Amino acid sequence: MIYITRRERFNAAHRLFREDYSDEKNMEVFGKCSNPNWHGHNYELFVTVKGKIDPDTGFLVNLKKLSKVIKEEVIEKLDHKNINVEVDFMKGKYVSTENLAIGIWQQLEKAVNELDAMLHCVKVCESENNYVEYFGK
Amino acid sequence: MIYITRRERFNAAHRLFREDYSDEKNMEVFGKCSNPNWHGHNYELFVTVKGKIDPDTGFLVNLKKLSKVIKEEVIEKLDHKNINVEVDFMKGKYVSTENLAIGIWQQLEKAVNELDAMLHCVKVCESENNYVEYFGK
Amino acid sequence: MIYITRRERFNAAHRLFREDYSDEKNMEVFGKCSNPNWHGHNYELFVTVKGKIDPDTGFLVNLKKLSKVIKEEVIEKLDHKNINVEVDFMKGKYVSTENLAIGIWQQLEKAVNELDAMLHCVKVCESENNYVEYFGK
Amino acid sequence: MIYITRRERFNAAHRLFREDYSDEKNMEVFGKCSNPNWHGHNYELFVTVKGKIDPDTGFLVNLKKLSKVIKEEVIEKLDHKNINVEVDFMKGKYVSTENLAIGIWQQLEKAVNELDAMLHCVKVCESENNYVEYFGK
Amino acid sequence: MIYITRRERFNAAHRLFREDYSDEKNMEVFGKCSNPNWHGHNYELFVTVKGKIDPDTGFLVNLKKLSKVIKEEVIEKLDHKNINVEVDFMKGKYVSTENLAIGIWQQLEKAVNELDAMLHCVKVCESENNYVEYFGK
Amino acid sequence: MIYITRRERFNAAHRLFREDYSDEKNMEVFGKCSNPNWHGHNYELFVTVKGKIDPDTGFLVNLKKLSKVIKEEVIEKLDHKNINVEVDFMKGKYVSTENLAIGIWQQLEKAVNELDAMLHCVKVCESENNYVEYFGK
Repeated sequence: MIYITRRERFNAAHRLFREDYSDEKNMEVFGKCSNPNWHGHNYELFVTVKGKIDPDTGFLVNLKKLSKVIKEEVIEKLDHKNINVEVDFMKGKYVSTENLAIGIWQQLEKAVNELDAMLHCVKVCESENNYVEYFGK
Repeated sequence: MIYITRRERFNAAHRLFREDYSDEKNMEVFGKCSNPNWHGHNYELFVTVKGKIDPDTGFLVNLKKLSKVIKEEVIEKLDHKNINVEVDFMKGKYVSTENLAIGIWQQLEKAVNELDAMLHCVKVCESENNYVEYFGK
Repeated sequence: MIYITRRERFNAAHRLFREDYSDEKNMEVFGKCSNPNWHGHNYELFVTVKGKIDPDTGFLVNLKKLSKVIKEEVIEKLDHKNINVEVDFMKGKYVSTENLAIGIWQQLEKAVNELDAMLHCVKVCESENNYVEYFGK
Repeated sequence: MIYITRRERFNAAHRLFREDYSDEKNMEVFGKCSNPNWHGHNYELFVTVKGKIDPDTGFLVNLKKLSKVIKEEVIEKLDHKNINVEVDFMKGKYVSTENLAIGIWQQLEKAVNELDAMLHCVKVCESENNYVEYFGK
Repeated sequence: MIYITRRERFNAAHRLFREDYSDEKNMEVFGKCSNPNWHGHNYELFVTVKGKIDPDTGFLVNLKKLSKVIKEEVIEKLDHKNINVEVDFMKGKYVSTENLAIGIWQQLEKAVNELDAMLHCVKVCESENNYVEYFGK
Repeated sequence: MIYITRRERFNAAHRLFREDYSDEKNMEVFGKCSNPNWHGHNYELFVTVKGKIDPDTGFLVNLKKLSKVIKEEVIEKLDHKNINVEVDFMKGKYVSTENLAIGIWQQLEKAVNELDAMLHCVKVCESENNYVEYFGK
């Protein structure tokens, strides 16, 4: 079993809030992240897949194909977007980094299997001080 | 003459566009950065000041005071904000990184002088691949 | 189960040595790190906690609360301090990065539980070339 | 059980290709990495070992000794070398990052045991966007 | 006057040597970098241009156009290449980082002018410990 | 004229204080950095030299020789040392990063000239948020 990780990046706007809360209550619970006018981040995404090395190539997966999958299933939907408003797989969810990591896992799991590998970890870095990891369970 | 640089960070949403352009024209000129629903960044700000060392302390400036000035004049106005909508010193300007660097210089120049130092450079990093520097002239 | 990591930093002096060794013997075993006049580092601390997402917020833990706990229990006791001389939770221990990671775990475990999360990993980076991880067992 | 990681670096040339493929077929499967004139990388190697803390020193392993082992068994054989042509432990293998990580593991396993520690992970970073991890099974 | 910098990256093989030197003499003068079997690097290239802000856009230059110019004139010629053997603008030169920076400057100067900006600095980072800057004079 | 920069690192303890101040006064002026029990940093040093390319080698300077000079004149005197107590070229000075940069310049200037280059800049990074640059005048 070998593990390979690909980093991709996206820039996006978001907001942490509940519609059933007042602005004051949102500020109390979510702080500055609840700003109704949005804020944003340079997100870094690390996708780790695992499996066996293909004896014909020495590869676990072809990284170009893995990168293409991540771009099609995740980056194109998030990059330069408003995550609360425009991202179908985040509809109806609070846009926390935790939920974003799980949403990205669900976007990628099937497509990674089709590359003859297993998704192992989705890591989303929101800033140099914070990141979330999800291992699918 | 000695130079000292302080890094501060802020997260913000913005949009590149002209009100007198259609969405299509904005997309043509400004690309994905013109998304009407906003996007955002983790900005890094490097403020360089210059001057003479104070023989009483060995300092050019007290870094705590410099950091306080940058936070009060710049970071509190930008962090977790929508730069187009909420930032007084960017009102009426295109929110390019170039204009942002100049706006930040104008916010800081007088306050740095009051610390007995001269503002030398404002550097704004929008991503790991792009940054702008302004030297005041 | 989801994992979230918070980075905090501290600067400190320390020394690796045994009181029952001569300076020569300490130099032989601990090298330059045994300098009786101390040396120091910019330490980076990564604290990973795990648990379930709170359906009311989308958070595993409120990162501001996690950061506050780390600052109160760990950073305030280590930052700009001499670890051998001034840090109560390291008293009587050799100040290796290994023992520091375990000491920080013991400082944090209970306080993290009170945030309804479990401490998963304490990672202490002493330099860009060395780091220690402790998982509590 | 405690984990300690040492980073070392090496610069090397390599090429991804199969001798039984034409240049065209190699380009199709391995892309630009198949260039018959070679290309190269600044590789970063992170070696993680695990074990118990020695009560006489507070160390899991003496990092100078671990660094010396990594340099002798791995870095001296790879640094400023052509991995396909000059590295005995990669002879007859496709020089993918996956195979390189496994080859490095095999170079290190016995020597780490002799330091009274267990090899836990070999992580090889080929670029800021890609890395491979091998845990020995 | 405002300054904007774009980072691009390339991976390449090279060798430092003189044809009129023996292998021994090359080793003496150029060290491990003279290995006849090549070695390589992940190079980082920072291109800084300067000029006036276009009042119609708030841009000094459109970064997509600057990135395209750098890719066409420099990156496509260097990436995954052997700099000694395959790069026309380095033919007949010693492939030091110094000469590489000057060669890249010459590739870019005219194309940057056509973007209504002036080339200010070409910075080439060969490793985390070394970089060269050229300002055109 | 071409510029080349070499990075070296050192870990050291220091303290900011005046002997003629009480501990309370030192705390007021220098903050936590005045701790009588010392604290420390991982310092990064960037030394930039300038000059003409040697047509015999393609080098401005041989980086191994530059690195050797920096290690002999600076790093060996600072690494794993207490800067206030043990570093001859800082005796009688306040150990601010400003004074450290000037002291390092004075250590290097003559030795760099002997490599047929001119010292251009000494940059000392005390943390990821602060650095000082000195250009010799």
